[in-house]
Amino acid sequence: MPTVKPIEYADAGAEVRAVYDDIKRTRNTDWINNFWKVLAHHPPTLKRTWESLKQVMAPGALDPLTKEMLYVAVSVTNNCEYCINSHTFAARRAGMSEAMFGELLAVVAMANETNRLANGYQVETDERFKQPV
Amino acid sequence: MPTVKPIEYADAGAEVRAVYDDIKRTRNTDWINNFWKVLAHHPPTLKRTWESLKQVMAPGALDPLTKEMLYVAVSVTNNCEYCINSHTFAARRAGMSEAMFGELLAVVAMANETNRLANGYQVETDERFKQPV
Amino acid sequence: MPTVKPIEYADAGAEVRAVYDDIKRTRNTDWINNFWKVLAHHPPTLKRTWESLKQVMAPGALDPLTKEMLYVAVSVTNNCEYCINSHTFAARRAGMSEAMFGELLAVVAMANETNRLANGYQVETDERFKQPV
Amino acid sequence: MPTVKPIEYADAGAEVRAVYDDIKRTRNTDWINNFWKVLAHHPPTLKRTWESLKQVMAPGALDPLTKEMLYVAVSVTNNCEYCINSHTFAARRAGMSEAMFGELLAVVAMANETNRLANGYQVETDERFKQPV
Amino acid sequence: MPTVKPIEYADAGAEVRAVYDDIKRTRNTDWINNFWKVLAHHPPTLKRTWESLKQVMAPGALDPLTKEMLYVAVSVTNNCEYCINSHTFAARRAGMSEAMFGELLAVVAMANETNRLANGYQVETDERFKQPV
Amino acid sequence: MPTVKPIEYADAGAEVRAVYDDIKRTRNTDWINNFWKVLAHHPPTLKRTWESLKQVMAPGALDPLTKEMLYVAVSVTNNCEYCINSHTFAARRAGMSEAMFGELLAVVAMANETNRLANGYQVETDERFKQPV
Repeated sequence: MPTVKPIEYADAGAEVRAVYDDIKRTRNTDWINNFWKVLAHHPPTLKRTWESLKQVMAPGALDPLTKEMLYVAVSVTNNCEYCINSHTFAARRAGMSEAMFGELLAVVAMANETNRLANGYQVETDERFKQPV
Repeated sequence: MPTVKPIEYADAGAEVRAVYDDIKRTRNTDWINNFWKVLAHHPPTLKRTWESLKQVMAPGALDPLTKEMLYVAVSVTNNCEYCINSHTFAARRAGMSEAMFGELLAVVAMANETNRLANGYQVETDERFKQPV
Repeated sequence: MPTVKPIEYADAGAEVRAVYDDIKRTRNTDWINNFWKVLAHHPPTLKRTWESLKQVMAPGALDPLTKEMLYVAVSVTNNCEYCINSHTFAARRAGMSEAMFGELLAVVAMANETNRLANGYQVETDERFKQPV
Repeated sequence: MPTVKPIEYADAGAEVRAVYDDIKRTRNTDWINNFWKVLAHHPPTLKRTWESLKQVMAPGALDPLTKEMLYVAVSVTNNCEYCINSHTFAARRAGMSEAMFGELLAVVAMANETNRLANGYQVETDERFKQPV
Repeated sequence: MPTVKPIEYADAGAEVRAVYDDIKRTRNTDWINNFWKVLAHHPPTLKRTWESLKQVMAPGALDPLTKEMLYVAVSVTNNCEYCINSHTFAARRAGMSEAMFGELLAVVAMANETNRLANGYQVETDERFKQPV
Repeated sequence: MPTVKPIEYADAGAEVRAVYDDIKRTRNTDWINNFWKVLAHHPPTLKRTWESLKQVMAPGALDPLTKEMLYVAVSVTNNCEYCINSHTFAARRAGMSEAMFGELLAVVAMANETNRLANGYQVETDERFKQPV
């Protein structure tokens, strides 16, 4: 913990506790992971981030497993160690098999590869792809 | 086309034409997009990239729509204009609705945000997330 | 506009209009920039993003000009053309002089340089920097 | 230290010692952090990087605290662990409070988020933002 | 190894062993590094990645040392710790001296710096640079 | 030119003209590309960047062509359009053939791919790669 220490429930103020309670209720667990305990150093960021995440990751037009896999794809591309570990864990809990994880990483790696081929050759976007909807 | 011009079928050698033919057959279309016509300047890259892409994007443990959405997630994170346009097009053709696209971008944006909160606070990975499988 | 067209006030639903009205009121202007008109394709993202931005960019422990310059620093590092242009504009309106802009870019460029020297040599973090607060 | 070991003053040549001496004088300290001791493996890079940094980070149109916060913003976006730790330390020494750090990371995270919304929707830059100065 | 454990030869299936054997034969060694042992969790990715790497890194218009140095340049820019360490090791084995490594990192750092100056000032590409070939 | 206009020789002050003159002399040309004409808005950045670039790109342990190709590798990874175009141009002028360019981009793309496989599987660095030199 080079910059800030996690804040435990017992040491937290009312604003932080309210978020911790909502995390526990929403996730049906007694456990809070380090990410939230560290964001607790800035309560407005803790509250806003949790409420945004709860809204964005809720089931909707996309199911929770697909959302978790998208989260992994971004985190792997950005090389965020904490986020890779926490969202791979979450994706597995949501039903991602090892075969799905293997294919997910294969697509992520391939996309990172072809992104650079398109950049390097400065490929012009085909007209067909530009139709606005 | 600042670096290289697309190579049309009529101007292509046998090795390139074989790949173009396989793209048309596999995608059941007569149309080749600029990405492949530009890779044709380096036939081994054209052939290897197409064969990898065909294998990686084929239906497997993940369906083609999920794979296209993962491709969009990576391309948006890397800001590759060509890839964003071509894979958003492909994802829509594979069945992505506007509501799904909206949720996809919301997840991608959120992941890019929390990746930086985890970086900035140097959050330590919880032991629970580190169990190897 | 390769993917989606901006949505004008006249064509917007009640939920979108409410956000447009709040943007106008908060910024004391009649003008809405394209970013919001495009997010309007996914009203929950429009509403959540606007409310977050309004909260995050409000004067607090940091003044609005410093916040806009931090926004420019991130957008330049990520090479987001829209964001570079819109936030450079906003920073100037908030009082950034050309000399300040020159120094801002010099720091951003220098940080991108030394980030890679630290990566490339795999420099170990000094104990002194790891004291948690 | 997977790639190169830090070089201590006692083991350094005249060119490297001259830079170490200037760092100590400029910063009014006896302590040299690992970054410089590792750059010492390539004396021209050590000398050029130190002289550039000294110039770029000196007080000017922007104050040293603002410059350190911009450095943190870039380092967090790039996820450079060494740089996040060393420049967060430097920013605190220059007067950054925890509330300022919280707001800094909130802006950095938000910018990384909206950068991807602008990319994903391929938002067109408004004419108003394009006025050259 | 937070996500998957390396798979040793003794525990590997026929498909994985065939790749391990080819790596040993091609590199004239008995040692397999962790990257391949971890990819073995998804045999199609192991096989495709190894065959692509073998083709791409073979001597051609560019010699193996230049190719390894380009690999280091990309890995440093992306801050991939594993890749920086493994490809710096490989580049040294291929003949990279410490002076060459120092200049390599100086160029990589400089390019990351000027990339951001070009982004930040939104410099327009000169007509002369756009001649297609 | 959305943010700043290039400054021509006739409109430049003495400090900027001195740099322009040195660029012309060093490169044996009468032509100054837009990058320098835009940096001229902040003379200390123009001067420092040019002097650093002149030193870093001079022939040394690495030849100028290898250095230009490393510059392209970084610029493609970061997707800096200006830098890709200007340094691909420079690399060609320094002797890069189309076959070399094809192999360069193949290596860059492959490195971007395997960087993400190493990230995604969180591959642990082999002890053998960690020997400091």
